[in-house]
Amino acid sequence: MSTVAAYAAPAAKAPLERTTIERRPVGEFDVLIDIKYAGICHSDIHQVREGWGEAIFPMVPGHEIAGVVAEVGPGVTRHAVGDRVGVGCFVDSCRECGPCRAGTEQFCERGMTPTYNGLDRSGRPTYGGYSTAVVVDENYTLRIPDSLPLDTAAPLLCAGITSYSPLRRWKAGPGTKVAVLGMGGLGHMGVKLAHAMGAEVTVLSQSLRKREDGLRLGADHYYATNDPATFEELAGTFDVILSTVSAPLDFGAYLGLLRPEGVLANVGAPEDPVSINLFSLIGGNKAIVGSMIGGIAETQEMLDFCAEHGIGSEIEVIGAAEIGTAYERVVASDVRYRFVIDTATI
Amino acid sequence: MSTVAAYAAPAAKAPLERTTIERRPVGEFDVLIDIKYAGICHSDIHQVREGWGEAIFPMVPGHEIAGVVAEVGPGVTRHAVGDRVGVGCFVDSCRECGPCRAGTEQFCERGMTPTYNGLDRSGRPTYGGYSTAVVVDENYTLRIPDSLPLDTAAPLLCAGITSYSPLRRWKAGPGTKVAVLGMGGLGHMGVKLAHAMGAEVTVLSQSLRKREDGLRLGADHYYATNDPATFEELAGTFDVILSTVSAPLDFGAYLGLLRPEGVLANVGAPEDPVSINLFSLIGGNKAIVGSMIGGIAETQEMLDFCAEHGIGSEIEVIGAAEIGTAYERVVASDVRYRFVIDTATI
Repeated sequence: MSTVAAYAAPAAKAPLERTTIERRPVGEFDVLIDIKYAGICHSDIHQVREGWGEAIFPMVPGHEIAGVVAEVGPGVTRHAVGDRVGVGCFVDSCRECGPCRAGTEQFCERGMTPTYNGLDRSGRPTYGGYSTAVVVDENYTLRIPDSLPLDTAAPLLCAGITSYSPLRRWKAGPGTKVAVLGMGGLGHMGVKLAHAMGAEVTVLSQSLRKREDGLRLGADHYYATNDPATFEELAGTFDVILSTVSAPLDFGAYLGLLRPEGVLANVGAPEDPVSINLFSLIGGNKAIVGSMIGGIAETQEMLDFCAEHGIGSEIEVIGAAEIGTAYERVVASDVRYRFVIDTATI
Repeated sequence: MSTVAAYAAPAAKAPLERTTIERRPVGEFDVLIDIKYAGICHSDIHQVREGWGEAIFPMVPGHEIAGVVAEVGPGVTRHAVGDRVGVGCFVDSCRECGPCRAGTEQFCERGMTPTYNGLDRSGRPTYGGYSTAVVVDENYTLRIPDSLPLDTAAPLLCAGITSYSPLRRWKAGPGTKVAVLGMGGLGHMGVKLAHAMGAEVTVLSQSLRKREDGLRLGADHYYATNDPATFEELAGTFDVILSTVSAPLDFGAYLGLLRPEGVLANVGAPEDPVSINLFSLIGGNKAIVGSMIGGIAETQEMLDFCAEHGIGSEIEVIGAAEIGTAYERVVASDVRYRFVIDTATI
């Protein structure tokens, strides 16, 4: 066991404060990671505030972790001391079920082990990346290619893979038209990734406020969804719409923007059920799909893709003392486009 | 022009009665088809009763047409006199737009020409298969392989392709588990087709009333959806659920029966919007999709597949005088599994 510094919420809805936590000893197949940067994901805030149900406290959030290997267990073959590595939303799974074998460990039938706010296979609570170090099984540790800075790479481990996986599955690429709905932490990654995949990219944002950013990050077009003309002009246009928003949406209106056989892929989601007229799917063989992060192999593929294309997140690096303020700004959608904690400040 | 016998509804909701209609002269690329059999599709009834909005009267329904070529225009190369042929839900499209070029003519951007209750490219009303003959462009006329009887083949032109297309698109086949929801005109075709594709097939029907039929037609398993235990036992089981029902459904319950990356494909649909919690799609990368008939090439592929596997519809052949009674029985779900009109009785 080792004692490490961390920022934790002592109870639901409480402000995060500096504390220490115990990390497990480095096991045979474990790596000890000196955490350098940890991204702030909106889901951190949901969980600290118990917006998704009862949670485990104290809670050390953070599942966008980038750091350097400081020690490896005797059985480790995938990583070495000094390697630049990342950890995403989960740190273990059963490794035997269909989804685990299929490389979709996030859907492990026995339940994946979340990076924080969960219990590991032996029943101990897991603590996330708002911390100076973490011990993770080598198989759930990703390589961060040398060309990716650790700070802009950290958000790739959640925001990056969340956008990448549905774009790949639904075949964004040359000759396809992709719309990214919402221009936030997920959306701005969607723009960069879809552009790098070769798609023609359109941002659909509430207003034109972030238009300049969108075009700079790779969008070919930028439309405001508060303008009804957008829905007329773009009717029947897109092969894929990547929806990153959690505000209630008029799904019928967005389905109308899809071509026949088009896909509305949701990575954000309104908390309340949405109403959908199935005829708007049938008339055009359209699809509404969900997507949740990605498996380990696909996350590595995404990191390698980002390195190849020079893609990182647009970030604001903050000190740990600013986490509370950052949370308020995330809730207010006032961040371009991801906060990343410099863990040297913890 | 030629005058042919037909059964038509003179006005909305009126009973169908014997009449005569004019068919256009056989044009350069047309075939004149002696209709032998015409299936009764539930959508015939919807349209006669204006359940889908204002319709064109008199209406000669029927888009499940099987017959024999009696005459061909001088430019026809695809069919010859004596050939066994079929006509499905549409008889023309623009042939130039993206969907037409992609082989999804049913989504023609300028609108496909429905086989009945529509206007053809020159503005004349179209009349369907409850008739002794029809003139159709050769490109919208399908070959019915010799091994398929014309009576059991007729329903393949709508019920068959409607089930076939989503099963193919979503990759029903060896190693996959397919559920067919509803055991009617569409559902019984879904069972036969999914079985022939090599999938493990489960029928989900309200009760076990048609269980024996289901197993005989190729289902491996048969469950009643009025038994809550079904939803526990089958949780996380299916790669594809083909929903053929139009009754309101608890979509969350059916999404729970899908494996990760599973697809709920809707060919039937409740008239009212359905309520869907998007988290039930996100947690499992699941999809709700629609599907509407199929293009010409895919319809031909389906007919060839059916011939290869000896598949036709389960039918009750009726005389034209029985159409009214048949309509009542279709509405009451009292048909195993498709009525087919012997057009010699018109």
